[in-house]
Parts: sequence; C-alpha cells; structure tokens
Amino acid sequence: MSSNEPVLSFNPPMRVLMGPGPSDVPARVLSAMARPTIGHLDPAFIGLMDQIKALLQYAFRTNNALTMPISGPGSAGMEACFVNLVEPGDTVIVCVNGVFGGRMKENVERCGATAIVVADDWGTPVDPAKVDAALKANPGAKAVAFVHAETSTGVASDAATLCNLAREHGALSIVDAVTSLGGIPVLADEWGADAVYSGTQKCLSCTPGLSPLTFSERAVEVVQSRKTKTQSWFLDFNLLLGYWGGNAKRAYHHTAPVNALYGLHESLVMLHEEGLEAAWARHAKMHEALKAGLEAMGLSFLVAPEHRLPQLNAVNVPAGIDEALVRAHLLERYGLEIGAGLGALAGKVWRIGLMGASATPNHVTLCLTALETVLAELGATVAVGKALPAAAKVLWG
Amino acid sequence: MSSNEPVLSFNPPMRVLMGPGPSDVPARVLSAMARPTIGHLDPAFIGLMDQIKALLQYAFRTNNALTMPISGPGSAGMEACFVNLVEPGDTVIVCVNGVFGGRMKENVERCGATAIVVADDWGTPVDPAKVDAALKANPGAKAVAFVHAETSTGVASDAATLCNLAREHGALSIVDAVTSLGGIPVLADEWGADAVYSGTQKCLSCTPGLSPLTFSERAVEVVQSRKTKTQSWFLDFNLLLGYWGGNAKRAYHHTAPVNALYGLHESLVMLHEEGLEAAWARHAKMHEALKAGLEAMGLSFLVAPEHRLPQLNAVNVPAGIDEALVRAHLLERYGLEIGAGLGALAGKVWRIGLMGASATPNHVTLCLTALETVLAELGATVAVGKALPAAAKVLWG
Repeated sequence: MSSNEPVLSFNPPMRVLMGPGPSDVPARVLSAMARPTIGHLDPAFIGLMDQIKALLQYAFRTNNALTMPISGPGSAGMEACFVNLVEPGDTVIVCVNGVFGGRMKENVERCGATAIVVADDWGTPVDPAKVDAALKANPGAKAVAFVHAETSTGVASDAATLCNLAREHGALSIVDAVTSLGGIPVLADEWGADAVYSGTQKCLSCTPGLSPLTFSERAVEVVQSRKTKTQSWFLDFNLLLGYWGGNAKRAYHHTAPVNALYGLHESLVMLHEEGLEAAWARHAKMHEALKAGLEAMGLSFLVAPEHRLPQLNAVNVPAGIDEALVRAHLLERYGLEIGAGLGALAGKVWRIGLMGASATPNHVTLCLTALETVLAELGATVAVGKALPAAAKVLWG
Repeated sequence: MSSNEPVLSFNPPMRVLMGPGPSDVPARVLSAMARPTIGHLDPAFIGLMDQIKALLQYAFRTNNALTMPISGPGSAGMEACFVNLVEPGDTVIVCVNGVFGGRMKENVERCGATAIVVADDWGTPVDPAKVDAALKANPGAKAVAFVHAETSTGVASDAATLCNLAREHGALSIVDAVTSLGGIPVLADEWGADAVYSGTQKCLSCTPGLSPLTFSERAVEVVQSRKTKTQSWFLDFNLLLGYWGGNAKRAYHHTAPVNALYGLHESLVMLHEEGLEAAWARHAKMHEALKAGLEAMGLSFLVAPEHRLPQLNAVNVPAGIDEALVRAHLLERYGLEIGAGLGALAGKVWRIGLMGASATPNHVTLCLTALETVLAELGATVAVGKALPAAAKVLWG
C-alpha cells in the first residue's frame, strides 16, 4: 500500500446473524466496547474484573474461584484447558462426534499425550456406554473430554452423565460449552465438571475474541502440582492466576483486552437481567417456532428431536438444491447470514443459529420468510405459505 | 452473584494514559469497534482482512505475504513466533536485557529447545559483539531472538545489526517490536528480519488484544518444512494460513475477533493518513519536549541518550520518594496513568509512555505539570517552574 493512496474507514454492511456465531450483538454491548480505554492495572479495571468473574460464576452456575475469560477466542480457551491439565505421557479419552471433538484430539496430541478416541456418528450425541468402556479399558486416564453442544452438527450431549462417569473413574472432565453457555443449562457445579470453556460470540451475544472458562478446585490442584511447565507461557494458569486470581494485589501477566472485557461485562449484565432460566426458555421457544415453520415448509432436521440444540439447527438441504447459492441469495437480498455445513456435513446441511440476541420472534420470522422465498424460486419442493402461520402459532398461540 | 441483585453497566473513569500501554485510544478507533458485528466469513469481512494485511505491510515496511494480526495480545504474538519456528532440540540465542527478553527465554524452553542467553544489563541495549560470539560458539543455532524496544527499560536495540548477524550465521531473527511499531522505524524488509511481532495498544493506539505479525518467506519455509507439528493448535500457521493466507477461498480456522479488527483497521488508517515518517518524527519531538522538561525539573533518565526510546521514558525516582504514592496522586488527582518499574526496576523508575495518541503537546504538558506539583508537595528536591518553559521551547520554539 503506497503512502499517497487514501484508505477509507470500514463501515460494515448490515447483517442479521443467524449462523453458528457470531450472533447479533446488541447496541448496549457495542457501545460498552466503545467506552474509553483504561489501564489493565487501573483500580477501576480490577473492580470490573471482579464483577466479570462473579457474573461468569452466575452464567456457569459455579462457585469455582478460577473463573475468568481467556484473552483469545474459544479455540484459545480449549487450548488453555488442555495445556494446563494434560502433561506428556498422559492418556485422555476424547469423544468425537463432530468438528470440535476432532480439534480436542489435536490438542491432546500436541500436548504429547495419547488420545483415546470414542467416536460417534456426526449428528448423534456422545454415547456414555462407550465412554464407560473406554475408561474401563484405560485405567489411570487423566481426563474425559467432550463437546457439550457440537456447533458443527447441532447435537447436545449428556454432560451430567459424562462428567459423572469421569469422576467415578478418577478422571477429570473437560467440557466444551462454547455454543451452550447461556442457551441451554450449563451447570458446572451440579455436573461436577472440572474444566468448562465457552465463547462470547454465541448465546452471550458479545463480539468474538474471548473465551470464558471455569476450573474446579480439583483441576486447580492438578495445575498446581504439574511435573512439567505448561507448554504455553501465554496460557499458563500458574502465572495467569497472579493476575486473575483472588489476591488484592494483581501481578501483571499480559495486557488484558480492556475494551473487549467491557463488552463481555455488558453482555453478562444483560444475561443477568433476563435471568438464566428465562434465557434458556427463550432459546427453547424460538427453536420450537423455527422448527414448526421449517417442518410446515417440508424441511427436516439432521438431529433426532431429543438431542437437538435449540440454538443451533442443522437443517437438511433439499435434494437438487445448491446450498451455497441459497446462502448467497439470503445474504445479498436479506442481509441474512446462515451457516454452511462443516467437514463431513459440507454441502449437506445449513446451520441456522438462534443464539442470544438472534433468538427472537423477528429472527425466526425473517429466516422462514427469506428461506421459503429463495427455495421456492430455486425450484425446491417446499410448501409455500405454511411456515409463518405455524411459527406464529408457537410464538403467540 | 444472586439473581435479584442488580448489576450496573460499567462506565470507566476518564484517564490520560501515559504508562507503558495501553495508550489513549482515539474516538475514531473506539467508534469503529462499536460498528455492527458481521460474520468472520462474510465477503465484506474478507475484504477488510485484505486491507488490514496491506496496512500492516505498510506499517512493518515489508512485502511479506504472511503479515496478519494474531487473535490475542502481544504475548500470544510472541508465542506464535516461537511455537511455529522452533522445534524440540533446536538452539536459540536469546538476548535478555529486560523483562520481555526473559519471557522469550521461557518461550524457547517451553518449545523443548535450548536457550543460549546473551545477557546485558537492564537499561542497556543488546550488545551485538556478544551475539556474534554466541553465534560463533553455537553453530547451527536456529534463531536469534531479541527485543527491539524493551518496554521494561525504555531501551532501543540495534535491530538492523542483530538481524544481519543472524542471517550471516544462517539463523533466523525473531524480533519483538511490541512497543516500537509506529513509534520508531521498524523496517522488516530492510533489516532482513524473519519474524517480527507487535501489539496494538502501544504506538498504534488501538485497544489491547491483538498482535500484528510478519514472517519472511524464509520463515514461512521453515514453518512449512517442520518435522513436528507445532505444539499450539490455536497458533499453528500451517492451519491459520488457510484463513489469513492469500487464497480467494478462506478456510475457517477460528472465529476472528471481528470488532477488535475494525478497531485495528481504523488505527492503521490513521497511521497511514499521518504517514509513518511523520509519526516517527512526532514521537521523537514529544520525547525531546518531555526530556527538556524533566531535566529542567532536575530528574534524570535510566537509559543513555543514544539508546533511549522516545515512546517509553524510564525516569529515575528521586531519593526518598515513595514512587507508588506519586502514581496514586497522579491517578486520583489528574486521572493520569504512568507506569511503575517492572522486575529489577520495581520501585526505582517510572515508565512514562508517549505512544501513539498519547504523544501530543498536551500530554507532555499535563505530565510535567502534574509530576512537578506532586513531587514538590512530597518534598522532593525539584526545580519548580522550569519544566514547562523548557518543554514549550522544544514544542514551539
């Protein structure tokens, strides 16, 4: 870029975000992020950190002292769990039923540990019986890692049962709750989960870039009694706790992403105002409305009803339809973003998100209208005029 | 936190940021961050990524194709360099003349490599003769790592000479330019530097949380011909290049911090508008003005004049003065943040930043006024009434 070529400020197009995240970010959160930057060791900022910690404890339903946001996206949160808890030579049971379980396996192996994969078909939940068998076959396994809400397929797995199985066998549990936190119950203490990480850009409706996380006391003890240093300096909890820990005097570790934390705080304040239970109920209801509309149109879901995530709907692409063309039309005409299939599901499903601020009647209504119009135009066999009344019936009786 | 306890939005106090970063963030950057979030695979976002890349190439004075921001703070950028370039068993010459050189050593060791430390006193630059000797004593060393602008001491090292020495011995150069980029010349191509990383919250005056980085073609070849996988999945350039690389089709790796990138883009647009040379000249002039004022007051600098960073001024605390009390008064009375000493310099120096939007005549004026008033009140032997005229003479002749 030459010195005299003018460069314009970036003004993004208006979008309605109904993909697998980011979801629509409320103006309250955006304007919180635009407040003046202060120092990461400012007394006022330390107060904000304490409040974020308390609000995250509320969101995770936990009293864990180690509850904080990692200064990076969800994949940094995932990595923080593995590099702190897993040492070279350890064995970890990794449940893989989609893209993000596969990423967990990569993390385990890059820690110099052995991953014992428990595989389930994409679109189905993790099978606890297989996990039980793997734990029995691998006594001394350090941890069981699984994805609570698989963003690539829209499947919920039974976190309570899986955490309990791990504990029964003396293993830690590592739970990916990136897409679940704030959308369906994430009950860290009730499950007895040892490490749970999430993302900000899904059901919390904050901007992407941070990864809230909580570690049980048992997990903290494992970190503090490591034989080797964690391979990541940036994510080393033995250092990071000096900054985010409970001490009055905070030791500098790295410069916290101050304004991103303003945004996270505001999104957590909003979640707290609505109430966790109310947020879960809203996500459930919007899913019921979308489902009624899609099924009235003649579309079907990838996942069996009892395992579906309300906030991430994997919808089968009708035969003969170019799914990318549909998404392009939705984006260009309606500013509406829905997600493509990932990995093994590329080209086969759409992923429609109803997350956080994108889980409203207006989102459901726009999505059904736009999808029906575009599909009909492209010659798909969809029932026209039935989706909206079906959704409205769920929404308003 | 209970469900019925109301939680207020966070409104930060007004500060003037003259510490070691973050620096004051211009309203243009803050408001850019508050623009509506779009998807990280949106065509409009891909266009923004291309522009950020071109603007970073301008800022780093490079044509390197691998030029991008890491989705984490400067310490993630540092780690990205080491985990991608260094493999177990490698030897790396690490120059340590402050806190951040020490952090580089930690990074090398956590990669399973051997760090050969070239130590220089805090407050002095890296000695090229020692580096040359270390390279001769360690044939086959993989890289030389050093900090261009030591934020803990305010020292500039001779990057051109050090990069050249590395190259002469067939080693890569890894350069920490966190505090230098935008404040003094960072000339990646002219130096022949192989890996240079920076931060957003220093002389770019963006919010903290991202780490701009550039890799030479030679460094990219080293990454692509690794024998082992990099230990970090999140920072693995062999994966990340699918998203930030030059291909028309971007492969999803992790969810980019969309709004933080809006902010970085705007801060780079502002740097481009001002022009790199003009920005360097402004930092130099503000340093001269601050120096004239501080010296007129009777204060002295830690670092010899020829090695001083204009943007980070390590000032000796006068004998008998409680440096923390001075900072507390400055913060409470004037909203003015200056930095404490780090590590070996804790209690001995203040670190006064003149970075980016905090390098203006008004910042210099406020800092001198406030410091003189507080020091006089606390009984320090400072000459009163001389600092401002001395600074004004530099500023306005």
